[in-house]
Amino acid sequence: MHFASIDALRAACQDLPAGSHAAADAVARRQDTLTKPQGSLGRLETLVAWLARWQGRETPKLDRVKVIVFAGSHGVTAQGVSAFPSEVTAQMVANFTAGGAAINQLAQAAGAELDVIPLEVERPTDDFTLARAMDDKEFLDAVAHGYDSVEDATDLVCFGEMGIGNTTAAAAIAAALFGGVDQWVGRGTGVDNAGLGRKTAAIEVAMKLHGDVLHDPLRAAAAVGGRELAAILGATLAARLRNVPAVLDGFVCTAAVAPLMRLHPHALDHTIASHCSAEAGHRGLLTALNLKPLFDLGMRLGEGSGACLAVNIIRSALACHTGMASFADAGVSEKSGE
Amino acid sequence: MHFASIDALRAACQDLPAGSHAAADAVARRQDTLTKPQGSLGRLETLVAWLARWQGRETPKLDRVKVIVFAGSHGVTAQGVSAFPSEVTAQMVANFTAGGAAINQLAQAAGAELDVIPLEVERPTDDFTLARAMDDKEFLDAVAHGYDSVEDATDLVCFGEMGIGNTTAAAAIAAALFGGVDQWVGRGTGVDNAGLGRKTAAIEVAMKLHGDVLHDPLRAAAAVGGRELAAILGATLAARLRNVPAVLDGFVCTAAVAPLMRLHPHALDHTIASHCSAEAGHRGLLTALNLKPLFDLGMRLGEGSGACLAVNIIRSALACHTGMASFADAGVSEKSGE
Repeated sequence: MHFASIDALRAACQDLPAGSHAAADAVARRQDTLTKPQGSLGRLETLVAWLARWQGRETPKLDRVKVIVFAGSHGVTAQGVSAFPSEVTAQMVANFTAGGAAINQLAQAAGAELDVIPLEVERPTDDFTLARAMDDKEFLDAVAHGYDSVEDATDLVCFGEMGIGNTTAAAAIAAALFGGVDQWVGRGTGVDNAGLGRKTAAIEVAMKLHGDVLHDPLRAAAAVGGRELAAILGATLAARLRNVPAVLDGFVCTAAVAPLMRLHPHALDHTIASHCSAEAGHRGLLTALNLKPLFDLGMRLGEGSGACLAVNIIRSALACHTGMASFADAGVSEKSGE
Repeated sequence: MHFASIDALRAACQDLPAGSHAAADAVARRQDTLTKPQGSLGRLETLVAWLARWQGRETPKLDRVKVIVFAGSHGVTAQGVSAFPSEVTAQMVANFTAGGAAINQLAQAAGAELDVIPLEVERPTDDFTLARAMDDKEFLDAVAHGYDSVEDATDLVCFGEMGIGNTTAAAAIAAALFGGVDQWVGRGTGVDNAGLGRKTAAIEVAMKLHGDVLHDPLRAAAAVGGRELAAILGATLAARLRNVPAVLDGFVCTAAVAPLMRLHPHALDHTIASHCSAEAGHRGLLTALNLKPLFDLGMRLGEGSGACLAVNIIRSALACHTGMASFADAGVSEKSGE
């Protein structure tokens, strides 16, 4: 799906299906018959109802789980915002393909199939301290690439990213959407204090340079974002329209989908925040988006690493729902007085 | 291993091995060569070092993971402290055996073998508002049963429990060890406010009745605990001596091992707290024991349910450690200036 214009994309983002409340209700009714105190599996119970709602199935499935990692290169790395050289983006794409990265191991452990989608990694976006990172066509191309990566037959999809410099882009999107700068700027892959200063300065410059478009969430994402972030936005939209619940990863992934929330207050209802990362701005961004992460293990790798860990939790939740006996079947007495 | 007396058990609890720091250091050195920013996998990295230290292996294994669920019956249920009738304990043991409980599904999803160990379920402990729950022999029998349940060949063990009334016993142990009553009393399987009042009153009575032994952590565990809690204490001690890292579950499991910490400040270093449960006293108890849970998903089921979820996280952590490429092998550039 290629959107003809930013206006066409905006219109699509504002016309979203609501999922199947009937399927979610059926899950909740079954949960209450299973051999456990009602509600005692906590978020494991609500996760299954969430799966049901967005798959549109009273008995959700997790037969086909995908992890899609988008990679992009960032012109803003010229400003010295990252601890690693920009060629690492392409090197890590090769590492993903060879199976040597964290995400390869985590996807396998989660029973998920990994797709790696490099987005013109050899051609960085423009340095957003000097020009828009992407023009409309470049942005919409990346959105379309992400959109088309999500297949109907998928039961659950995880989004991840790789791109040296992309926590700077993510912080810039957060600054554009929610104001402020400092609270969104973190150490990314491990930049020192001088680098942190350069990162903050680059975003401050960008906020002034692109001030005329920052009120528009999608134009802001084009001006200060990156191709992998645009692809995640497109993929998250496609997931909504294709009945595929989606698992978000860390700070960059969350910033990538933040513009959707600005266009529709329930745009992220079909997503779950897997974790709160150690990247400085993530907790505030999750709060701003009203997303409640499943866990916080101090991770800050990206790649979809946190999202993959969440898949195991969701699988366990579904296993309880489908495999447990009811009070009646197991001959277990119910709560006194019920 | 049957301890001849509470004094003999106490002596064993005070003479604990320290694990292999060399193995943990080897893990940390390897972590820093893998294709990720140093430390960016957060607790996944420290979990592998922890496994290595307590398995005593530079390359930890998770080939054989066990979940051991201990079940016991509680005389204090006569005081109306639980939302469920006491016969549910035996019924749930049957449900475990038939494969219909949450823990069956969660153990399978975690690739763990489940052992269910009923401890004289047909013979409740004495009502601790009237007498000691267990005499020395009964307590030491249960400790021994737990101790003998942990096998050397196990790579990781999870402890869980089932016992209608056992959050009352757990709260009583916490009250005995740390003082106060109200902060340890929660709704368990879902008791109403009247039940919460009866639960609190029962513990207050017990604190007075058994005041002469509460200064002694093991005698307190005998006076106001339960057989499944004593078994978890014994099993946790055995795990330490048999090089088996252990995963704790919720409030009851944490209370069961709390006496060990009172006898040795590093008694729980070979354990990890899987989660913070929704049971009211758990967060405070974890804090008192200086345990940092991996996640909080609002669960309050017991059975080892949270511990099993943690196994998936630990498996993912190990998969990264053993499967990832190094910077050198993958041809990825290291951090600038390093």
